[in-house]
Amino acid sequence: MNAHPFVSAEKANALAKEFGTPIYVYDEQTLRANAAACLAFPNAFGLTVRFAIKACPTAAVLKLFLALGLHFDASSIHEVRRAMLAGVPAEKISLSTQELPADFADVLRLGVKFNACSLDQLERYGNAFPGTRVGARFNPGMGSGGTGKTNVGGPDSSFGIWHEYAGEVETVLKKHNLTLERIHTHIGSGSDPVVWQKAALQSLSLVRRFPTVETLDFGGGYKVARVDGEKTTDLQTCGAPVRDAIARLAEETGRKLHFEIEPGTYLVANAGAILSRVQDLVDTGAAGRKFIKLDTGMTDLLRPSLYGAQHPIFLAKKSGRAVPAETENYIVVGHCCESGDLVSCAPGEPETLSEKTFPRAEIGDFCIIGGAGAYCSAMATKNYNSFPESAEVMLGADGNARLIRRRQTLEQIIQNEVA
Amino acid sequence: MNAHPFVSAEKANALAKEFGTPIYVYDEQTLRANAAACLAFPNAFGLTVRFAIKACPTAAVLKLFLALGLHFDASSIHEVRRAMLAGVPAEKISLSTQELPADFADVLRLGVKFNACSLDQLERYGNAFPGTRVGARFNPGMGSGGTGKTNVGGPDSSFGIWHEYAGEVETVLKKHNLTLERIHTHIGSGSDPVVWQKAALQSLSLVRRFPTVETLDFGGGYKVARVDGEKTTDLQTCGAPVRDAIARLAEETGRKLHFEIEPGTYLVANAGAILSRVQDLVDTGAAGRKFIKLDTGMTDLLRPSLYGAQHPIFLAKKSGRAVPAETENYIVVGHCCESGDLVSCAPGEPETLSEKTFPRAEIGDFCIIGGAGAYCSAMATKNYNSFPESAEVMLGADGNARLIRRRQTLEQIIQNEVA
Repeated sequence: MNAHPFVSAEKANALAKEFGTPIYVYDEQTLRANAAACLAFPNAFGLTVRFAIKACPTAAVLKLFLALGLHFDASSIHEVRRAMLAGVPAEKISLSTQELPADFADVLRLGVKFNACSLDQLERYGNAFPGTRVGARFNPGMGSGGTGKTNVGGPDSSFGIWHEYAGEVETVLKKHNLTLERIHTHIGSGSDPVVWQKAALQSLSLVRRFPTVETLDFGGGYKVARVDGEKTTDLQTCGAPVRDAIARLAEETGRKLHFEIEPGTYLVANAGAILSRVQDLVDTGAAGRKFIKLDTGMTDLLRPSLYGAQHPIFLAKKSGRAVPAETENYIVVGHCCESGDLVSCAPGEPETLSEKTFPRAEIGDFCIIGGAGAYCSAMATKNYNSFPESAEVMLGADGNARLIRRRQTLEQIIQNEVA
Repeated sequence: MNAHPFVSAEKANALAKEFGTPIYVYDEQTLRANAAACLAFPNAFGLTVRFAIKACPTAAVLKLFLALGLHFDASSIHEVRRAMLAGVPAEKISLSTQELPADFADVLRLGVKFNACSLDQLERYGNAFPGTRVGARFNPGMGSGGTGKTNVGGPDSSFGIWHEYAGEVETVLKKHNLTLERIHTHIGSGSDPVVWQKAALQSLSLVRRFPTVETLDFGGGYKVARVDGEKTTDLQTCGAPVRDAIARLAEETGRKLHFEIEPGTYLVANAGAILSRVQDLVDTGAAGRKFIKLDTGMTDLLRPSLYGAQHPIFLAKKSGRAVPAETENYIVVGHCCESGDLVSCAPGEPETLSEKTFPRAEIGDFCIIGGAGAYCSAMATKNYNSFPESAEVMLGADGNARLIRRRQTLEQIIQNEVA
């Protein structure tokens, strides 16, 4: 039986005994290794790696990345505040958001960096902070998402200022005496290197247009293979042409651009797992299916239901049970009263059942769902069917596990209801 | 300009001023009318209408339905506890759940009714409560969902005990001296009356097999039209053949079955709306798109992203602005840093942009999203991008609005994190 890289059967039993199930388990060593890989991203004149907080905003993860030298990308003003509460200094946070609330100036005044993501945001920033330095996010006119859902460039995307509006940007900058110091051009979660190169060149043409720009922020979108057949973006391959283009710009113009990336998935996806129990086994007859019902589901892991995302699933026997020689094919489902709560779906097809082969399962065994560090705890149908937010645990480099988030209580779920 | 049935432009301005945005707005009069319609469901020998709590579990909604004579269907033990905290007596709650946790007996002992949804659940119930009366949920072998995601009958569904296992059910009943008093056969969220009739006959054949059964619980699945072109299930049409079949059973056998239904969507979908602000307007050039960016999104309304669900969207001008004669075509998007946060998608196609025509919009105008009473507040990617859970408001029959859930704070979002 294949074992999960950091949640072995033995570990699963020990963690469940100590913390219950379901829990998210993060592995410090993997987080450290991923951070090191990102910090080695090719660059010509310096690099800032910003962790995309939205992928996994738990304070313990933010604190670890802070200690490892990462900076942070916030996608909302709430994430800025959350990171600061976790101890991240304001100047290590950059805000690029779809929604700039009325009180944004209070937060930016603390020293948070900002990329205006629309002309209106730039105007409002200029009103609040005339004569200062600012960044701008552009939509470079092309995207590279794995699916429409993760493609954030091109004419069908609302993210950033449309590249043809560079003139309007100049007008707003002039009006408020702003200096454009940074350009951001995240193009989505795809990994096609040819698209990357094209986007890099397009971004550099924007940089040429704005001579005050000192930093190019290329966003995230570095793919990670969670299951066989998927491909992890090779950061060296993908970064090299951008580095070279920046070097050429320097040769031509003397401008030595600082480079920023904002990985989320790449830093955390395979550093997280969900440890859950097989809480029931049912079948629909001889010609039907065998189902494993977990004590987790879309309340902890929405990506399969939302994208048809593939996560590796490992069966671990409960304590004292040997691994049987016989295998069975199972459909793995979640605990919600919702048939869309399907964990083992076909790739890209949330509604299509896909059988997984495991050693014969018993109630009380464990399923360990890998690749669950990014956009799982952060993006789930929390509290659906009134299930509580799950606990989170960090496996230290010493092998010890510590609780980093307690399981939510029912009283907390309803704490804001007014009698 | 079309207006939302209970959130007019004037009301939108008043509610936003008092409660901020985004908020869920529920309308008491609509809730009352829906409850009355369900209580008039055709039946031969008595009817219990159970509100499917998972659709909208806020205490104020539960309390109102309780006062109107409804009972409750809980899909998890957490929902049972939640309903009881809202004041629902245990005996008015029925539990049919995918996951029966270890402490289930503590809750059932209070008088909560129970449908065993698997052979293992029945066995565990029998061990805890030998010699008592119990219900069982069967998978009748066929389904009627609108999509695979909402189809909960047939061989590809894990919900309920496969109908061919009636013999195994008898064995467990006998072993623990249990009396089967109720059969449950929810078949999903479709509305094909032919399928309904077929499922009714199949359910009655199960009833014939178990002579102690006194109640047939037919679950929910009553569709509601949120937008033009969708069809609302006609409860009278759909219920008549089931009532007639129950009447025939009585003629033949003298058994007068009590009938139960468990509507969720039907009771609340069109009684709820999301009031949100147009917080930005961007476009992607002459050949591109115009986007309305709301201050809500998948954090409050996941159904478009998950199912390609259609919700009506109404534009209301901010206070003091006349409705312009000019219209524009807009793509309506949410506030998350996620291109899948698309509100105006094509039917059944979460990733396909669908333009909506509105009077020309300005930042600060409102978008009122209708049909948002069911599976919106209850089933969203709460806290994604660290956005807080939205406030909820009830419009009383007197037209006054009262807060029924406060907006979540950032401190609450992180309250379980361990330093």
